[in-house]
Amino acid sequence: MTPKGFLFSTVEAAIKAPGRKDLALIYSKKEAYIAGTFTTNKIKAAPVKLNIKQIRSGKGQALVVNSGNANACTGKKGIQDAVETAKLVSNGLDIKSSLVYVCSTGVIGTPMPMERVRPKISELTGNLGRSTIQDVAKAIMTTDTFPKIVMKKVKIGSKTGTIAGICKGAGMICPDMATMLCFIMTDSAVEQKTLDKTLSDAVNKTFNTITVDGDRSTNDTVLIMANGMAGNPPITEKSKSYATFKNALYNVMFDLAKLIVKDGEGATKFIEIEIRGARSEADAKKAAFSVANSNLVKTALYGNDANWGRIMTALGYSGIMVKEEKVEIILSGLKIVQKGMGTGKDREANEKLKNREITIIVNLHLGKSSAKVLTCDLTEEYIRVNATYRT
Amino acid sequence: MTPKGFLFSTVEAAIKAPGRKDLALIYSKKEAYIAGTFTTNKIKAAPVKLNIKQIRSGKGQALVVNSGNANACTGKKGIQDAVETAKLVSNGLDIKSSLVYVCSTGVIGTPMPMERVRPKISELTGNLGRSTIQDVAKAIMTTDTFPKIVMKKVKIGSKTGTIAGICKGAGMICPDMATMLCFIMTDSAVEQKTLDKTLSDAVNKTFNTITVDGDRSTNDTVLIMANGMAGNPPITEKSKSYATFKNALYNVMFDLAKLIVKDGEGATKFIEIEIRGARSEADAKKAAFSVANSNLVKTALYGNDANWGRIMTALGYSGIMVKEEKVEIILSGLKIVQKGMGTGKDREANEKLKNREITIIVNLHLGKSSAKVLTCDLTEEYIRVNATYRT
Repeated sequence: MTPKGFLFSTVEAAIKAPGRKDLALIYSKKEAYIAGTFTTNKIKAAPVKLNIKQIRSGKGQALVVNSGNANACTGKKGIQDAVETAKLVSNGLDIKSSLVYVCSTGVIGTPMPMERVRPKISELTGNLGRSTIQDVAKAIMTTDTFPKIVMKKVKIGSKTGTIAGICKGAGMICPDMATMLCFIMTDSAVEQKTLDKTLSDAVNKTFNTITVDGDRSTNDTVLIMANGMAGNPPITEKSKSYATFKNALYNVMFDLAKLIVKDGEGATKFIEIEIRGARSEADAKKAAFSVANSNLVKTALYGNDANWGRIMTALGYSGIMVKEEKVEIILSGLKIVQKGMGTGKDREANEKLKNREITIIVNLHLGKSSAKVLTCDLTEEYIRVNATYRT
Repeated sequence: MTPKGFLFSTVEAAIKAPGRKDLALIYSKKEAYIAGTFTTNKIKAAPVKLNIKQIRSGKGQALVVNSGNANACTGKKGIQDAVETAKLVSNGLDIKSSLVYVCSTGVIGTPMPMERVRPKISELTGNLGRSTIQDVAKAIMTTDTFPKIVMKKVKIGSKTGTIAGICKGAGMICPDMATMLCFIMTDSAVEQKTLDKTLSDAVNKTFNTITVDGDRSTNDTVLIMANGMAGNPPITEKSKSYATFKNALYNVMFDLAKLIVKDGEGATKFIEIEIRGARSEADAKKAAFSVANSNLVKTALYGNDANWGRIMTALGYSGIMVKEEKVEIILSGLKIVQKGMGTGKDREANEKLKNREITIIVNLHLGKSSAKVLTCDLTEEYIRVNATYRT
């Protein structure tokens, strides 16, 4: 069951190619508190620029999302198109335009085909309630191979609420943040500032710890709407139930982040990289991303080759302090490097790599900080997907 | 003709696999001035550690190089093995051990098979003069598909000298520096400090501007020996002929650097990326490498897809100041982006991409600094080469 008071709609606007639903609407019957985090890329898509302004109000009621066109690098027309879309949706829903958020994902640099989007908006608003959350999760997919939905119940006092999240993203994935759209809905009542803070904390621990290819897109967006229809007294950071809500939200987002990595373009393996014993958390993160983004590490893992020399190399150029003679590497439970040298277990380790889920723990033995990053392997299929993306 | 007084030798020591020459010797009849630059990776191979110490003397006479094993992450034994190799070579040549430099390239983390290397050294020193510079260039190859040799004449006063350079490297290529060994020999007389400075300046402008996959290895080394046998008065920075020598050395190294990129693992295209109009040279370099190391840019170029949105994206996350509305992108002479937006020439641009050599010029229109980086595309073959490297 989705959170109370949220309705969905999807239509086909043939934005990139005909034959699939590519325009979706999420609507809350009640005006909701909204919070969001957006790409740190200096080049931001038109709708992202609008959302960043608009979200200062902390209020929202509808999200309209298209796939197939990112509406990025589209100049003034891009902004006008996003504004017009919001306007048409707000007319159809009879709500203020400032409560409608627009999101786009797809090809960069092509103007939105408004001649096809425009006439579909009344169908979109008119059909509200005739689509499911699954339909929306499908409509926002680009190179994703499966829709990504996570739902959790959350009991606040006597009132049980629901947090439902959907997201899309498979390539161009790296903090801060990913080529990623994520929409979270909850009927639990949460005070706006608390919603803001809880979301950005959770983004740091979830979406900002995943990488597929080191690229960060122009469109990355996480939005959460809380409409309060579960009826609990609004949660603040001081509420007894704050931790409950916070954990539930974290879990929804972490599961979504994992789904993105599992659906990494062409990926055959899910890889968790943990750096321990770093001098600072920043160091640990740097090292973890250096290993996670190394094409040589990723191809070795794909080839079932426990080529730990490439992990050492990536640690060495990560820019942090590394003492070769202290490094320890444990691959899926097997110690393959001790004091900077191989333990002679490469053959056994190659066997471990045949699993679809792999953990790499590196202990730098220089301090007490740690960080974890999720990633996937790099395969010929990634190349094929991305060499032919626009054709 | 190779520079006067340099002799070569190669033997098969079956270091990784039998059937090819994998141990090479470069020897100068006269003690030479030597200068070198080494990897900035915190994890350095054993021979690199030794060379860094030894080169303080500024003198050298022999380089012994093996392929198939990097002698990196091999602990104390690795150091002992490199020392022993130098010792055996110095005995065979009857020169001081401190004049022998050892270099290794190949798999990381496997101890050197000294039981196979040791007995081959007397053959190596004994055969001096029976191999050519081509043989050496072949013996140091790993995933390289062709040997890399560049020679230039340099006239200093009345004396014509020669600069000959060989190098290897195809993957794990990024500054500062590449998985790369480069050995340069000249018979021109050059004062040691001048040799030092000229080399490191040239490395910055050549090998430090190339990238294949963003990885930087543990073994990168550039060494130059100048034995003075051309008979010119030793060149200093104040010599009238300094510019001549400097340019010749730069040209040798730039041509070698280009050969490495052209031989990039699996590469089908040679790509020159120039950032103009940046606020500083550092900014320009950062942006150039951000574009050059983007898997998404590299796969698009491979797929003949002028997907300039990915270039914009890579500029946007490069960490430098970018103003979307000012960006201009020229792809192989064709303006595809103006004021941050597409010019509608993507189809024409796709045609341009079918050439093997591609130039991308980005003008940020924010300042007067520029930087150039050389790279290649990313293909399925890169994945295959690197997924199976140790098998």
